[in-house]
Amino acid sequence: MRRLAAVALIALVAAAPAPKPKTPSEIVTAAPKADWREVAAEDLLVFELEGGRKVVMQLAPDFAPIHVANIRALARGGWWDGAKIYRVQDNYVVQWGNNESDKPFPAGVVAKPPAEYHRARQGVTITPLGSPDAYAPAAGFAGGWPVAYDPKAGTANLAHCYAMVGVGRDLSPDTGSGGELYAVIGHAPRHLDRNIAVVGRIVQGIEHMSSLPRGTEALGFYKERSSDVPIVRARLVADLPAAERPRFEYLAGPSFAAYLHARKNRQDDFFIRPAGGADLCNVNVPVRAVPAG
Amino acid sequence: MRRLAAVALIALVAAAPAPKPKTPSEIVTAAPKADWREVAAEDLLVFELEGGRKVVMQLAPDFAPIHVANIRALARGGWWDGAKIYRVQDNYVVQWGNNESDKPFPAGVVAKPPAEYHRARQGVTITPLGSPDAYAPAAGFAGGWPVAYDPKAGTANLAHCYAMVGVGRDLSPDTGSGGELYAVIGHAPRHLDRNIAVVGRIVQGIEHMSSLPRGTEALGFYKERSSDVPIVRARLVADLPAAERPRFEYLAGPSFAAYLHARKNRQDDFFIRPAGGADLCNVNVPVRAVPAG
Repeated sequence: MRRLAAVALIALVAAAPAPKPKTPSEIVTAAPKADWREVAAEDLLVFELEGGRKVVMQLAPDFAPIHVANIRALARGGWWDGAKIYRVQDNYVVQWGNNESDKPFPAGVVAKPPAEYHRARQGVTITPLGSPDAYAPAAGFAGGWPVAYDPKAGTANLAHCYAMVGVGRDLSPDTGSGGELYAVIGHAPRHLDRNIAVVGRIVQGIEHMSSLPRGTEALGFYKERSSDVPIVRARLVADLPAAERPRFEYLAGPSFAAYLHARKNRQDDFFIRPAGGADLCNVNVPVRAVPAG
Repeated sequence: MRRLAAVALIALVAAAPAPKPKTPSEIVTAAPKADWREVAAEDLLVFELEGGRKVVMQLAPDFAPIHVANIRALARGGWWDGAKIYRVQDNYVVQWGNNESDKPFPAGVVAKPPAEYHRARQGVTITPLGSPDAYAPAAGFAGGWPVAYDPKAGTANLAHCYAMVGVGRDLSPDTGSGGELYAVIGHAPRHLDRNIAVVGRIVQGIEHMSSLPRGTEALGFYKERSSDVPIVRARLVADLPAAERPRFEYLAGPSFAAYLHARKNRQDDFFIRPAGGADLCNVNVPVRAVPAG
């Protein structure tokens, strides 16, 4: 009997349909704690908009260290307390800061930072996207960031994907101080890659920016100053009392690899033709608030 | 004197720096009338949202003829009069129709259209993008539309770029009637290509959709029915009195070729590193209201 049962079991297993591949969201939900990497508190900045709306930005010191140091100094010096969102251009960017103001920079801000538009490829661990990229010889993911890179030139840069944050600047050689920032709220404007310092991304609350009324002036600037959206304050999470610190983590390790594969080969019940590839900015690295407990 | 003047002029011309390449917007502004193609009135549909906000959609009968015929029949039969925008998912789509309603389809609507997810490549004149595409062997532009195509399989399909409109459906083999539509309001969800019928794009007023509050339920559905945005009516432009018809045209011909080249090789004063390529959905075919006169 025992032997027969074993045979029957094998037959049963053989007859069962192949297990359905997990969907991207099932992979995220099932990812073990070991595949989540927490973002350091000094790399998180909370913008509080009028009405209590909060927007949390993750900084990218590995890619634009001097601009990021500026942004930390600007936050600590109260630069964004009373600043404004003054530009909302559809399918492009939301921009904020102290435009057309004579508010002085706080101490410690480098007025003319170097052009941190790309960095050395060396020292950056990249999970390749494995699909062609229209803007660079190769693309992939490094520390949770979407990156483009050039193996021949030995350079790597953050890509202008949705919710990524860059530094507003005037014409070259100006690189912008970090005092005026913009977030992408449309299709990735990748032509800006390597022409602007990309300094981070919005990890929570992008909808408070992307759903704002569009500006009617050229480039989406608001016509009336009364349309500007007040920013009450900006605080580095590292400067908040421990109990009040929001915490975030991004997906990495084998779970991210499985997620990337599933994003490129959608086999949910809905899909009849998996693409077999994905655009860098359509992968959307999972980032979430660290679950309680 | 005359001869000397001529020589001096030649010297002057030779010494002048090479003319600066035109920017994409300069090319659009300078495009002659012959390079603009007008959209047929029967291919334009005006949605009027509450508050007089108008959203104009261009239909794509060359790619999804049966779904487009359905949409015309739905419009003429009053399907969208009193419909609602009930889903706004950040970085994804806005969706509208008569969800969870028992409103019957007007006469002439094909309840189960075939899967018009791609068409024969033959008969489609394509200007190649000339940059790699992550979702298809090739990509380009046909009649003003962003398309992906497979020269080997002999197929072509509309791409899910920003503002493109697709047909909401349930699981396959359902293809959707056209009664529930969505517009892309984020980074191009190209994984939907060839899995859904794409039937057109918003050519005016997308900001009335993209700036709506995001829905808080799964997939961006609004939680409360009171959050739904009422659609007062939808009218085919061909059914409007001639004097009231909005008219649109898209860029084609040599001006579009020049525009595409300039989009791939940005040399505005702002840019220090032209990309040498572009993503299909970051080219943004120029579409405008036909200028008066």
